[in-house]
Amino acid sequence: MFKKVLIANRGEVALRIHRACKEMGIQTVAIHSTADEDAMNVRLADEAVCIGPPAPKDSYLNKAAILTAANITGADAIHPGVGFLSENADFAEMVEDHGITFIGPSADHMRVMGDKIEAKETAKKLGIPVVPGSDGGVTTDEEAMEIAKATGFPLIIKAAAGGGGRGMKVANSLAEVPEALSICRTEAKAAFGDDAVYIERYLGNPRHIEVQLIGDGQGGCIHLGERDCSVQRRHQKVIEEAPSPAISDEIRAKIGKTVTDAMKKLGYKSAGTIEFLYEDGEFFFIEMNTRLQVEHPISEMICGVDLVQEQIRVAAGEKLSKTQDDIVLNGHSIECRVTAEHPETFMPSPGLISDYHQPGGLGVRVDSHLYTGYSIPPYYDSLVSKLIVHGVSREECLARLRRALGEYVIGGIETTIPLHQKLIEEPDFIKGDYNVHWLEKLMGLK
Amino acid sequence: MFKKVLIANRGEVALRIHRACKEMGIQTVAIHSTADEDAMNVRLADEAVCIGPPAPKDSYLNKAAILTAANITGADAIHPGVGFLSENADFAEMVEDHGITFIGPSADHMRVMGDKIEAKETAKKLGIPVVPGSDGGVTTDEEAMEIAKATGFPLIIKAAAGGGGRGMKVANSLAEVPEALSICRTEAKAAFGDDAVYIERYLGNPRHIEVQLIGDGQGGCIHLGERDCSVQRRHQKVIEEAPSPAISDEIRAKIGKTVTDAMKKLGYKSAGTIEFLYEDGEFFFIEMNTRLQVEHPISEMICGVDLVQEQIRVAAGEKLSKTQDDIVLNGHSIECRVTAEHPETFMPSPGLISDYHQPGGLGVRVDSHLYTGYSIPPYYDSLVSKLIVHGVSREECLARLRRALGEYVIGGIETTIPLHQKLIEEPDFIKGDYNVHWLEKLMGLK
Repeated sequence: MFKKVLIANRGEVALRIHRACKEMGIQTVAIHSTADEDAMNVRLADEAVCIGPPAPKDSYLNKAAILTAANITGADAIHPGVGFLSENADFAEMVEDHGITFIGPSADHMRVMGDKIEAKETAKKLGIPVVPGSDGGVTTDEEAMEIAKATGFPLIIKAAAGGGGRGMKVANSLAEVPEALSICRTEAKAAFGDDAVYIERYLGNPRHIEVQLIGDGQGGCIHLGERDCSVQRRHQKVIEEAPSPAISDEIRAKIGKTVTDAMKKLGYKSAGTIEFLYEDGEFFFIEMNTRLQVEHPISEMICGVDLVQEQIRVAAGEKLSKTQDDIVLNGHSIECRVTAEHPETFMPSPGLISDYHQPGGLGVRVDSHLYTGYSIPPYYDSLVSKLIVHGVSREECLARLRRALGEYVIGGIETTIPLHQKLIEEPDFIKGDYNVHWLEKLMGLK
Repeated sequence: MFKKVLIANRGEVALRIHRACKEMGIQTVAIHSTADEDAMNVRLADEAVCIGPPAPKDSYLNKAAILTAANITGADAIHPGVGFLSENADFAEMVEDHGITFIGPSADHMRVMGDKIEAKETAKKLGIPVVPGSDGGVTTDEEAMEIAKATGFPLIIKAAAGGGGRGMKVANSLAEVPEALSICRTEAKAAFGDDAVYIERYLGNPRHIEVQLIGDGQGGCIHLGERDCSVQRRHQKVIEEAPSPAISDEIRAKIGKTVTDAMKKLGYKSAGTIEFLYEDGEFFFIEMNTRLQVEHPISEMICGVDLVQEQIRVAAGEKLSKTQDDIVLNGHSIECRVTAEHPETFMPSPGLISDYHQPGGLGVRVDSHLYTGYSIPPYYDSLVSKLIVHGVSREECLARLRRALGEYVIGGIETTIPLHQKLIEEPDFIKGDYNVHWLEKLMGLK
């Protein structure tokens, strides 16, 4: 096992990783910009190295400075956390070239999954369902009709050269295809000077469902069920829950097997998440995140697995300590991402935390680097706390979340706590009846 | 269900009950002495009533003032918490006489179990194992030998009129009885002028094991496994864990059934705990606590049951929502009682909390009423926080506890956090090899 892990990140995720290391008896090295000298993870770490000025490119994205910090502290592994260099294959390679273990998947897997087109092709090859449609531009009507039949309905015809919503037409049945195709081609020709189109299954109101997995690259791969992250604003997840109110045990077992079979074939090592759009019982691959995700705690809460510890163990060459049969989903968990933003305008609200008091009691987990007297710097992501609750049922979970949000005090700045309090009282949310458009519609953004 | 519950207590347990009520959608009334105006539970409660000056007899033990507070606020139930009036049968009766529900067992059951002799007799009748021995004083040698045989070994012969350790003798076999008896009688005669003795099984190094149960008084009663509370100083529990490192699944199932069968016979309604001394595979009844216990959270952590909510439900006339088969023990939990005392001298250390920061992350629960700027009054129990951790194994639990204790900041006063940090590094504690004398021996008190 590693003796010393350098945590190449900041904020709550750096603290999250620090905690996992401490529980494993591993020394930690914090790196920080000059703006983060007083950060909680820096205070708690066994060693800390300042790696540059506030701008991320000069500090948290500064590969050479981070590697130098690892060398001078004698760290034998680097955990990249979430964001910053966590999906940077070049960095992973540099780290390994320096004889230090990168706690994440192989650079090759990061590259494959980091490229949208290659990722989709790889997913398809591995048996993961992707959005059906044409592989590229379609020029003849005959070909279009054939592809439409194979794609299924509803489908959307888009100008191959298009963008910005122009030259797009939905067809709900084969009968509607010729007219949609004709209109789309005419619009495409007029707008882009090219009447080639592509055809894809149309998802009107999908949910964002993602499957958490962890593989050991030695034949072992398990999934920890799914997370429903459909409550989004401008593609940013706001509230996540596990399990999804829309997924049955049978569907979970099936997609879980699909995903783990695929990752076993790939020989994937480390934690990863396959993101899907889900509609009417069908999953469609969006992308794979080859790293820890912000919302990983809700899977931990219902599975009893410490994902960061598992990540560290498989990076150290251990096999997975659990089989799929060991993973029994227990209850329900919801996470609220609390950001330092105005709850209505979303204006960033960095600054001094004059008062900080986190909720406690049964089933309440707080992952936050805040403390009274801490000053949130204005340079980074606005996530300041993850409030995670667990309950035996979704109903108990919601009641607990309501109670915990009511206790949470973050004084001196604006936060999105009032937004979360509002959202969890929405009848649709209480029913679990929402999709990726729900929050934006509710906010009048759509 | 109740609309409004008056919480007749203070400190962390008042907050614990407030949280349960809020999660059930029940309004809360806090009562407080003039010393507790700024208490967290008072701040969070829907209504608060000052019931008297700091001295407990004038406030938290002031039955008339509490009943008046319940009447003027229209509370339909009173939860007595832990300590104060929680085992006062007269109070329970008064509450019920005023048409308010007392959230606890019947006054009769409180009375029976509140009387040491009656409790032991009742336990025996209900099939709960008690310490075997003579029922009263033994005067003849023949009778003594008969009772010794029936009692088993080792046994202790004590002067019936005795006390203070005089006139006591241990016999390890029947052969040793005549001499021990003779010495004991002689000593007893000399010291107390009465040579009657009583005989009891001698427990040299027992563990304190207690079984948590909850009954609905309608035929339903389940147990939530046992807690090991052997780490004690002057009969005060310091660290508790569940399950006990000494108890196997078979033993747990057996004693659990004994206890629940007994409580079903009694028709017991509410949460309760049967405390045992445990040695060499045998349980011996000490007493029954007819109330919530300070260490209840560790049972909640491994069973996924909110004990306070269940207590409230059965008090409202509901049947238990779970059967014994629903209770599956999951992982391990340890609680550290953090008190406002010097960690070596145990001198009380009330006063202003200059800094408060509680640990977070996976598997960490804090039940505490502290906050930055709160001033601990000098009039009450020194318990200020319960740090409760959960892990899939005892080993993970200990690692997490070590990590969480290291993060915990309670500034401005002395606390027992350093004592807990020391205790969990003791090899015996790590091995789970301790008994009721362990802590006092370790501290040089024995």
